[in-house]
Amino acid sequence: MRRSIATVCLSGTLDDKLRAAAAAGFDGVEIFENDLIAAPLSPEQVRERCADLGLSIDLYQPFRDFEAVGPEQLERNLRRARHKFELMRRLGADTVLVCSSVSPDAVDDDDLAAEQLHRLASEAAEHGMRVAYEALAWGRHVNTWRHSWEIVRRGDHPALGVCLDSFHVLSREPEPSGIAEIPGEKLFFLQLADAPRLDMDVLQWSRHHRLFPGQGAFDLTSFTAQVLAAGYRGPLSLEVFNDVFRQSPPDRAAVDAMRSLVALEEELAALSAARPDARPDARRVARPDAPVELSAPPAAPEPAGFAFAELAVDADSGPVVERALASLGFAHIGQHRSKPVQLWQQGEARIVLNAGAGDATGIAALAVETDDPGRSARRAQELCAPALPRTRGPEEADLTAVAAPDGSSVLFCRTGADPASWLSDFIRTGDASTSIAGISRIDHIGLTQPFDYFDEATLFYRSVLGLDPRDDSEFAAPFGLVRSRAITEPKGRVRIVLNGSLLRRGEWAPGVPDPQHIAFRTDDIVTTARVLAERGAPLLRVPDNYYDDLDARRHVDPELLAEMRRYGVLHDVDAHGEYFHCHTELLGSRVFFEIVQRVDGYTGYGAVNAPVRMAAHRDARLLRT
Amino acid sequence: MRRSIATVCLSGTLDDKLRAAAAAGFDGVEIFENDLIAAPLSPEQVRERCADLGLSIDLYQPFRDFEAVGPEQLERNLRRARHKFELMRRLGADTVLVCSSVSPDAVDDDDLAAEQLHRLASEAAEHGMRVAYEALAWGRHVNTWRHSWEIVRRGDHPALGVCLDSFHVLSREPEPSGIAEIPGEKLFFLQLADAPRLDMDVLQWSRHHRLFPGQGAFDLTSFTAQVLAAGYRGPLSLEVFNDVFRQSPPDRAAVDAMRSLVALEEELAALSAARPDARPDARRVARPDAPVELSAPPAAPEPAGFAFAELAVDADSGPVVERALASLGFAHIGQHRSKPVQLWQQGEARIVLNAGAGDATGIAALAVETDDPGRSARRAQELCAPALPRTRGPEEADLTAVAAPDGSSVLFCRTGADPASWLSDFIRTGDASTSIAGISRIDHIGLTQPFDYFDEATLFYRSVLGLDPRDDSEFAAPFGLVRSRAITEPKGRVRIVLNGSLLRRGEWAPGVPDPQHIAFRTDDIVTTARVLAERGAPLLRVPDNYYDDLDARRHVDPELLAEMRRYGVLHDVDAHGEYFHCHTELLGSRVFFEIVQRVDGYTGYGAVNAPVRMAAHRDARLLRT
Repeated sequence: MRRSIATVCLSGTLDDKLRAAAAAGFDGVEIFENDLIAAPLSPEQVRERCADLGLSIDLYQPFRDFEAVGPEQLERNLRRARHKFELMRRLGADTVLVCSSVSPDAVDDDDLAAEQLHRLASEAAEHGMRVAYEALAWGRHVNTWRHSWEIVRRGDHPALGVCLDSFHVLSREPEPSGIAEIPGEKLFFLQLADAPRLDMDVLQWSRHHRLFPGQGAFDLTSFTAQVLAAGYRGPLSLEVFNDVFRQSPPDRAAVDAMRSLVALEEELAALSAARPDARPDARRVARPDAPVELSAPPAAPEPAGFAFAELAVDADSGPVVERALASLGFAHIGQHRSKPVQLWQQGEARIVLNAGAGDATGIAALAVETDDPGRSARRAQELCAPALPRTRGPEEADLTAVAAPDGSSVLFCRTGADPASWLSDFIRTGDASTSIAGISRIDHIGLTQPFDYFDEATLFYRSVLGLDPRDDSEFAAPFGLVRSRAITEPKGRVRIVLNGSLLRRGEWAPGVPDPQHIAFRTDDIVTTARVLAERGAPLLRVPDNYYDDLDARRHVDPELLAEMRRYGVLHDVDAHGEYFHCHTELLGSRVFFEIVQRVDGYTGYGAVNAPVRMAAHRDARLLRT
Repeated sequence: MRRSIATVCLSGTLDDKLRAAAAAGFDGVEIFENDLIAAPLSPEQVRERCADLGLSIDLYQPFRDFEAVGPEQLERNLRRARHKFELMRRLGADTVLVCSSVSPDAVDDDDLAAEQLHRLASEAAEHGMRVAYEALAWGRHVNTWRHSWEIVRRGDHPALGVCLDSFHVLSREPEPSGIAEIPGEKLFFLQLADAPRLDMDVLQWSRHHRLFPGQGAFDLTSFTAQVLAAGYRGPLSLEVFNDVFRQSPPDRAAVDAMRSLVALEEELAALSAARPDARPDARRVARPDAPVELSAPPAAPEPAGFAFAELAVDADSGPVVERALASLGFAHIGQHRSKPVQLWQQGEARIVLNAGAGDATGIAALAVETDDPGRSARRAQELCAPALPRTRGPEEADLTAVAAPDGSSVLFCRTGADPASWLSDFIRTGDASTSIAGISRIDHIGLTQPFDYFDEATLFYRSVLGLDPRDDSEFAAPFGLVRSRAITEPKGRVRIVLNGSLLRRGEWAPGVPDPQHIAFRTDDIVTTARVLAERGAPLLRVPDNYYDDLDARRHVDPELLAEMRRYGVLHDVDAHGEYFHCHTELLGSRVFFEIVQRVDGYTGYGAVNAPVRMAAHRDARLLRT
């Protein structure tokens, strides 16, 4: 299918927006009127610019408050429309979006609205143009897709059709039915936007909180399938108003947008493969005159776990992290053949320390186990993830890597089975045959996302790795509200936790610049913590007040409580089970390790304790400086 | 009255918060439980810390989900309460806040709730403590102040009283009546928060959007007056949850908070002076045993206009701004006796160019005309505005200045009447007796506020200068959403427009770093613009597309439209009249001038055109670089 984007989705001037849309591979754009008005380019120049960039102009929008008015106002509105038809002629656009009126002057008279839209469509047709009528969810009299279709039906003009906007439809009716009954040729345009489910004024919800498909809570796959079932074959076009995207770099927002459409098409293809006629209203899906062409990236090989996590270290943090790993019971088992890179292991948990990756300490890469690394990498690239060149020496494994939104790498490996496994890049320097502290594997990796890229990162990991976003939480941390979102493989073998400030982080926040962490799994937190303490691990001290409160809230076995207090073990509980976790101090400027025990299928990440941990990191740092 | 603040209002660790509250002059704090839990200080150490800082601990909060439960849950809840009473003993706090239950386990039985709260109060009394019961606006069964008071009344224990929170009351009932009927001794605590009127889930509204008094839309003066009329004599205590404040530096947030209480007390004093018994339920205001002690800063002298605006210039921007002023018809009429400072004037519009104020170009000061500069300055200082030392030579005027939140200065002058007028600091170098371009005065000054300080700045200008916030707008600018708020003197003689990004500004935004402006008034924009063009003023070009759209929207006289197009004059209309305005290009990195004509009492600032102006500034810059 053709892919379009409304210029209103992107930040910048019209020229910035057009460049960004073209660079991301869009076929067309909707020109948002205010973007044109503020542009120094004449309509002819915009037309030329779009042609040069390979973009069609699929829609001119919006035209407001047209229908259901008195005769004098109608004449004024038609005069305005003629000006816009002339503009569209110069622009080379043939479809105008007309939103249902929000004017207090509009009367509640469907026949009058239909008659006046018929007249508008007649004038449009004279200019070779057509009118796509859309019900705004907050339209004065017309605010449902059914009502807009009824008026278009009564208006009965070949140049008059419906524009469906997923936000306006799904914000009012999460599971609409009957859309596939609309004759396909009357569906003039389709605008797609996702959104979180929010209980607020729908106009504010729409203006500030829309998201690209796959980033919110709407079922866009079923919705779009219905529209295709009706016979719609126009572009899939994004129209997303979002406070964050409005100020993000347009190039990356456009890539994020494109990724959302590729992922949506993949889901549409899966849906139609799974149940070609499962939906009663899907009978028109196979319109013989115009088959739906859905492109889909290679299917996601199941991620079977983390092969390793790679930390960039520098001259200061390297020794600190090495000492910490040793104290956690990790063995330094390998040294890279050609790079200043160490491999540490305990159980199946592997950490790569890379002293040549840059000058900042942080999580530089996460490596995912997959049956077919090549296919995983091709999939990632089709989902707009840039491939990363990895320099490698002779006889070294060809690790396929792509860049994540935060600049870190995602690698795909087949550790055990592959004859050219990445492990063979390391000269063996030690042995990890016993799990000294009971650590068995990486439980999850906690990545801190810049405020602007949180939703982009969600969609990236979700689509590229085939994971599910779940377990959203929000908590008041010492230096601002934090959003936390876990993205997990269904069996829990790969878990990524994204944390980010709800607003851009306050600059005053001292000492703790957006910490990242790697969490290791144990089956017995107290024993593990005891071993760690004996080995001198830099365990984070947790305030006594925490344990007094825990004791007030729950009956905890006093011996267990004493052990938890001794080692700084925190506690959480969910509907499934319990969670025990402790942390190291910050190692270098921004990374710490966590040890976790999941009891009885606890699914969360102890977000409730994060503010305590953050304050403790701050205080530990204050004590040391 | 005593002034308190809940630690949850401020960013940082508990220690950061206590220091900030004390530094801002608060008498006491509410300790938010989560702040204590995350603190490494023992309760005794917190008590000592507060004592050292001169802070009382007025409330421990919150205790949740206590009442109206089955017998086993009651025992668990009492056990939890006993732990907290012990903690409060160590802390030296004697009042605990109990929120109405939100638990699905709570039953809808007022007598049971009352009986169980009686039991809690009995246990509290044994520890010398008392229970303040508060209805959360989203409480499961109890969610109005009337209902919480009814349960406290039935509970009938001397250690059981009500906590009123202005948000919970006013979010549900904007003009409550009957509060003054509650016996004063049963009002154990008063929490104050303002908020904008938002149509959204009340829990989300409360958690994210509360403001300090005077920053939102609630009538806190009437509300607090009722509480005082009931006989309440405890502290005025702030409890504000706000996404922005949560990540702002706590020191400045605490000062902002203190300013809000000083301003509120001033309004309370004005209210009781104006109508000591106007309110039927205010009969208890003058509780003879405990008069209300309201401190109030000196009344605000009426600001009669801008004496001048001061621009900081550097070696690059200085000549650019000088040329621009000359081309706008300003005369360079004075040179400062001791500083590299020039005075320019046209009509009553005066601009001071200060080449010694710093290295950045920007609005360094605004000077307001007042009858009594000394009183204005004392008022500002009592409203927590730091006084600024101004170095002055012998025989130079003593300009009283205070610092605004954005770091610029506010000065108070009496230009004409004062024998030691600031004008006498300048050696006359020219003459401004004719208004060459028809500019008569400064219409308004547009200040760009950092995202974090927008509400703080509103309260600052409103309270310090005695202005009214009005004309809020929000618009989608090329590089993100912008909030705009005008703060004006009732007769329009002093108008300040605050602009700020809704979110922190995207770092990608090129070329236009948060521009500020000074707008000059004319009575004939076309004539003025023509003179400016003839004099070579750097007028900002506005795209033809703007005029084509204006022509589509309105019948504009073609000759006028042609003139507007020629000189880049923009247009707006409101319920009162019309607005015409044009702009210069950016002069240096961030300042431009605007020329405005107000027709028939137009009250706004043309915010609708701001995105066009911003894009044009961007494009003008691109053309030049």
